[in-house]
Amino acid sequence: MPLISLTTDFGDLYPAAMKAVILGINPEVQIVDITHSIRQAGIREGAFVLYSLVRYFPQKTVHIGVVDPGVGTSRRALAIKAGSKGKEQFFVGPDNGLLIPAARRLGEMEVYKIANPELMLKSGISATFHGRDIFAPAGAHLSKGIPIEAVGPRIPDYLNLDFGNFGIDGPFIIGEVIFADSFGNVITNIPEDIVLKFSTFGSQVEVNGRRVSFVQTYGFVGKEEPLALIGSHGFLEIAVNKGNASLQFGLKSGDQIAIKTV
Amino acid sequence: MPLISLTTDFGDLYPAAMKAVILGINPEVQIVDITHSIRQAGIREGAFVLYSLVRYFPQKTVHIGVVDPGVGTSRRALAIKAGSKGKEQFFVGPDNGLLIPAARRLGEMEVYKIANPELMLKSGISATFHGRDIFAPAGAHLSKGIPIEAVGPRIPDYLNLDFGNFGIDGPFIIGEVIFADSFGNVITNIPEDIVLKFSTFGSQVEVNGRRVSFVQTYGFVGKEEPLALIGSHGFLEIAVNKGNASLQFGLKSGDQIAIKTV
Amino acid sequence: MPLISLTTDFGDLYPAAMKAVILGINPEVQIVDITHSIRQAGIREGAFVLYSLVRYFPQKTVHIGVVDPGVGTSRRALAIKAGSKGKEQFFVGPDNGLLIPAARRLGEMEVYKIANPELMLKSGISATFHGRDIFAPAGAHLSKGIPIEAVGPRIPDYLNLDFGNFGIDGPFIIGEVIFADSFGNVITNIPEDIVLKFSTFGSQVEVNGRRVSFVQTYGFVGKEEPLALIGSHGFLEIAVNKGNASLQFGLKSGDQIAIKTV
Repeated sequence: MPLISLTTDFGDLYPAAMKAVILGINPEVQIVDITHSIRQAGIREGAFVLYSLVRYFPQKTVHIGVVDPGVGTSRRALAIKAGSKGKEQFFVGPDNGLLIPAARRLGEMEVYKIANPELMLKSGISATFHGRDIFAPAGAHLSKGIPIEAVGPRIPDYLNLDFGNFGIDGPFIIGEVIFADSFGNVITNIPEDIVLKFSTFGSQVEVNGRRVSFVQTYGFVGKEEPLALIGSHGFLEIAVNKGNASLQFGLKSGDQIAIKTV
Repeated sequence: MPLISLTTDFGDLYPAAMKAVILGINPEVQIVDITHSIRQAGIREGAFVLYSLVRYFPQKTVHIGVVDPGVGTSRRALAIKAGSKGKEQFFVGPDNGLLIPAARRLGEMEVYKIANPELMLKSGISATFHGRDIFAPAGAHLSKGIPIEAVGPRIPDYLNLDFGNFGIDGPFIIGEVIFADSFGNVITNIPEDIVLKFSTFGSQVEVNGRRVSFVQTYGFVGKEEPLALIGSHGFLEIAVNKGNASLQFGLKSGDQIAIKTV
Repeated sequence: MPLISLTTDFGDLYPAAMKAVILGINPEVQIVDITHSIRQAGIREGAFVLYSLVRYFPQKTVHIGVVDPGVGTSRRALAIKAGSKGKEQFFVGPDNGLLIPAARRLGEMEVYKIANPELMLKSGISATFHGRDIFAPAGAHLSKGIPIEAVGPRIPDYLNLDFGNFGIDGPFIIGEVIFADSFGNVITNIPEDIVLKFSTFGSQVEVNGRRVSFVQTYGFVGKEEPLALIGSHGFLEIAVNKGNASLQFGLKSGDQIAIKTV
């Protein structure tokens, strides 16, 4: 059975309209909700979520991502094929960067503009809900195996987005908070290999000037004690064992973070 | 694969019992959660949600709706077939009006009372959870293709519900707030065609005395500015770009709303 | 189609990684979310949820339960086969009691330690997310019909958990609050048969000294009036009609409760 994933900022209710449209076109597809709770218009956060999860999905998965503050304006609708031959996954969503880090992570990619009205909702395109009217049907048709060239012309350019603004500054690793999850765990853009070059598990680090243990998992520190760890996403996370690091450290999406080995 | 949708006020946890029962009877069915967050006992809100989404679902879909403050009392359990031949959809739920607007929207309908104990949960009927004990199994059997006559006798009467209390009063269009979604967008019962007779996109309207722009989509006004638009449901909505109109306008489900062209 | 259920304290986002892994191994499986909103580290609450729902699931269902404060420590990973021949269901999760009441409810059980690296995530085992790296793949392989012996050695011991601390004390039935659901309904560990030995529907009881009606369903008392009933789980519940009993009675998970017939 083919597989479609959904990542949106739609909250309740609206995802069901997308699923109805998808299953009307491809009744055999499995649909996995990645999340519908991306912060409204949180393109960077949505991009990171897709980016961090894409490697767990099987080949041929079609990822529909809709965090789309430009809906109804002239921003383009994209379909992307990414990954080496036989291992491709597909992406459908707005041209605002949302899909790019996940697609790029899979290797080479081909970007197409969705322009074929045959693949859009027959009852008309609303100005506010392209998730239902354009992206859901395009994704459903791709999950049935139509060639991606059928959606429209291949295009050479697209809006870019990356999580690359981390680096070394003297004794500090500087990075950015990508988002805080529903438990208050603070996920940064600092990848595992950079951190492990500077620190070993069991040592202490300073997070924005505050000393915490760098350990492998929550249970290695006491209840309500802070810790730094390599999260399941493969990036440095700041957490509090059975507590909320986002609140304790005052860190939210977009904030700078400085890590110092001590 | 056949399709069942679920619309309830059950919140977390209880929908899983319905799904277990459904998949025990029909392991091949696809289940789509429309929502489980209808306001408790919000029959009118649940009816509008089903009504607004039903046209996106494919033929033969079985919609199970359970917003059921009368559970365990003498209110009847209904199964409905609606729509023209070959395009039918089915509805299962309590006789309190919840299913009627959606079913009626599809065209002619036949209403049956669920009375056949063979189609109910074998381990007994609780007084509090007919969603699991009666509606889930009835819906699962319908999704397997049993004729609707098997559920019980056809009945001529049922509890009615409509969203019809809108109209023109001098310079005003008067309507009602059906519900506010999780973003605070205020959805009214005033249909698209009435609004477009009085206003054109780009004009100003007064919403309960407050002037706002009537535009096609959110991006046409500034951040935190209010707007009126035709929502993706096909009805007039009041919204605030990246804000909460329900809070800003003090409007909630059941409130009257008066729109004036200016 | 085979069936996998998921019960976790993961909130949003992380369940999708488990589903991606599961569907990569078994694309034909149906996945039912029981809940991802168990209180963090609420092993007893998670165990009760699984326990109360297991009887509604069809044979061969694989239940993956992950409420796992000991993740990354030396606690073992379990797979369990439970139920009489031809009616077995399977359970996968940590060795902390979470799975035991549900499995025991089905009758005889066999407990195995998950030790076969062939059944774990190929890209490596994180210290923080065994739900994705160990339990999801083990459950997916079981749903494909591998013999349970393939996961690892059968073991004679496991961490136990039961809901047995209720009893009669003079005129009182004493029990414990297992959890409060999202509506504030207070679910106790006092089973139906004990309650019905002491009280009949329509009588009054005292709940921690406060008099309430013992009735069959919510509609038998006025709006915002408290009631005691046999919940759909088959246990005594304290509720408030269209209100929140957990708040009104100040009762939460783990609290003692004393019921007196009056």
